[in-house]
Formats: sequence, structure tokens, C-alpha cells
Amino acid sequence: MSTQPPPGSTKRTKIRRLPEKAVRDRTALHTVLDAGLVAHLAVHDDAGQPYVVPVAYARDGERVLFHGSTGSRLFRGLAEGQPTCLTVTLLDGLVLARSTFESSMHYRSAMVLGVATKVTGAAKSEALHLITEHLLPGRWQEARHPSKKELAATLVLSLPLDETSVKIADGPPTDEPDDLSLPIWAGVVPMTEVLGRPIPAPDLAAPYPIPSYVRKWTR
Amino acid sequence: MSTQPPPGSTKRTKIRRLPEKAVRDRTALHTVLDAGLVAHLAVHDDAGQPYVVPVAYARDGERVLFHGSTGSRLFRGLAEGQPTCLTVTLLDGLVLARSTFESSMHYRSAMVLGVATKVTGAAKSEALHLITEHLLPGRWQEARHPSKKELAATLVLSLPLDETSVKIADGPPTDEPDDLSLPIWAGVVPMTEVLGRPIPAPDLAAPYPIPSYVRKWTR
Repeated sequence: MSTQPPPGSTKRTKIRRLPEKAVRDRTALHTVLDAGLVAHLAVHDDAGQPYVVPVAYARDGERVLFHGSTGSRLFRGLAEGQPTCLTVTLLDGLVLARSTFESSMHYRSAMVLGVATKVTGAAKSEALHLITEHLLPGRWQEARHPSKKELAATLVLSLPLDETSVKIADGPPTDEPDDLSLPIWAGVVPMTEVLGRPIPAPDLAAPYPIPSYVRKWTR
Repeated sequence: MSTQPPPGSTKRTKIRRLPEKAVRDRTALHTVLDAGLVAHLAVHDDAGQPYVVPVAYARDGERVLFHGSTGSRLFRGLAEGQPTCLTVTLLDGLVLARSTFESSMHYRSAMVLGVATKVTGAAKSEALHLITEHLLPGRWQEARHPSKKELAATLVLSLPLDETSVKIADGPPTDEPDDLSLPIWAGVVPMTEVLGRPIPAPDLAAPYPIPSYVRKWTR
């Protein structure tokens, strides 16, 4: 991988803890964002109490799109220019070192700092298209698209990938030299998210077959 | 499930969006926290920039324990009394409604608001024991425990379950009545996190067998 720092690297996103896990590569940032399904987003209320909220999202080039309800006071706060942080974390395994101190997880994590802006007009529907396609590839073509009323109830926000960091933990456990002779099994237990057999809605109008794009996800 | 509000329910944790998904049950809160491996935590720097950081954690009765490095300025901010939010989100499935608006995910999400306090002395080592056992059940008995130096480098924080909310999305898609007759397959694709075959470290001192407690996780 290239060691060219991404344009998004700043003092605030400099990885101080475990800097050897920092990945300064634009492709890695895109890959982590594209592989995740849910991001965790920072918002705060008027009293300064922070909240961490899970949101569906999609990467669109050099920005992340996500949506909420126009009725949500927290999302309105974001639309009004609150600084935020959006984090996507993928868990890839359990790491069993000989010491508990070095035991940890395999993970890939991307963090985006910045201020989100509202997406409006025709771009709003296109953003919802991208978010749906990220979560459910192939579905947009078949499903009923948002009505005017549904669009009006949806707040779509865009966060630029201007200030970002990526951290990847992989490889075997890294024990202290003195621990390597301990008579203990050490290693990694990989983790994967798998999709199960699709369950049809009980109220299908007819026994429609499972769409081919859905069968592709679960292969 | 009981409809008794948990002691942790406040105006700030009242679920305004999709209130039908709110679960006001202490057992549900514990179950979600016990099932998660990683939580997302809100912290902010001196300039007010928020960060959302993934952390390992464990529930211990009516509090959540998590740890960071004593060298982390963000964790020190938490130890100094910054209000925070810790969120655990479990993804259980993809929901394909006939409309994109009603399409979503099955998830279980728990949110804890409050101020964390430092865990010190003998309680610190016990907290690390609980965090290790939550992530890697059975491992503490066998692995090398933290040295004095490692303990000194670790900041352990405790967040009480005083102000909490739980949201659970499950069941079949809930389409608008007018959409039920659309000639589209609808349903749910379940998601599960599975553990793969353990990979021994390349530098094992001898070909130790995979411990029986690890085999139990991957059954």
C-alpha cells in the first residue's frame, strides 16, 4: 500500500495511540467505509450532552452521506453546523496473546471529523438512492422510491472526507519477548458477519421468489 | 417483557424517533450490553471537537467498565468528568420493505449517558479481569495477568447505568397499506457474527492444543 498521507490527515486525526496501526492511505479509508453497514455518529444537545447514534450511510466519492428524520432535534443540530465525528468499526477477530495486556481484537476503523451539510433538491433523492444501494445493493431498482411526503420527512446530510484517520489491527499476537516461552496457546480467532437464509414477509401479495440480487449477497 | 420503566429512563433518554422500538426493560439493557463486543464512546478535545472511539468493555452489575491508555488525552478528559455517551449496537438483519423508506435493519442498540469515574487500586485489576472475560471468556485463568507497569499504563473507567435507553428493531417489514399489493418480494435477511477456525500464533513455544474454552466459543 502507498505511504502517501491522505489529504485528510491533520494534527487532530494524527493517531497517537498504537501509531503502528495507523494506515495513511486513501484506498484503505474508502475500503473500510465501503465495507461497513452502520456508522456511529457524535451529536450533542443544547446542554452539551453528547450522544453516539448508529446511522446507515454510504460513501459517495470523497464524502459520506447519511440520513435521519427532520423531526430529530439532534439531526437538526448537525444540519446547523455542529462539529461531528463519524466512526465506522469492523470487527475481524479476537486476538489471544499470552498476556492479557496484549490481547485485543482485529479491527478496521475509520474516523471522519468535520461539519455536515444538508443535501437538498434532486441531490437528496440521489443520496437516498446511494444509501439504499450501499445497504441493499440492487434493491433501489425494484423497491418503491420515496414519495414527496417521505422525502420531506427525511434529512440527508453530507460529511466531506477532509479530515480522516484509519486504524487497522491485524496479524498474529505481539507478545513481550519474555512471554513467548509461556506454555499457553496464543493466536487469533477470526470473526465474520454472515447473512442467513432470507425470510419472506408473512404478507407477500403472491409467493414471489427471492430476488437474484439478494441471493448474490448471501452466497 | 415487563413494561416497567428502568430506573435509568430520563427525559434525555426518552426515545422520540420510532418510539415503538423503545424497550423499557432492565433485562433488555443488560442483554444487549452483554452480547456486544465493542462499544462506541463519545469524547471531546479542549476545542470541543467530538470523537467517537471504539472500546472494549464489560458490564458489571449496574455499571459499564472500559479501559484506555493513561497516555491518551481523550481518556484523561473522560476521567476528569466530561459527560459522555457509550453506545452498543448489534446488527441482526437487513429489512427489505416494498418501499425504500420503510427498508432498514434489525438491530439492538443500548445507550448509556453519564460521567465516568476512574477505577483504582485492587478494583482496577478486577475490572480488567471482567473486561478480558467479557471478550475472551475463560482466558483470564490461563493468560499472564497485567504487571505493575502495565496496570500503571492502563486507565480503567466506570460508567453507571443510571441514564440509559434501549432500542430494538425486529419483526417483518412494516410497509404502508398501499404498498402491500406491490409485486415485490419483501422480507428479512438475518445477519450473525460467526467465529472461524482459530489460527495459532506462528511463534508458539510448542504445539499447544486450542484451549477448550476457545473451542466453546466457536461451536
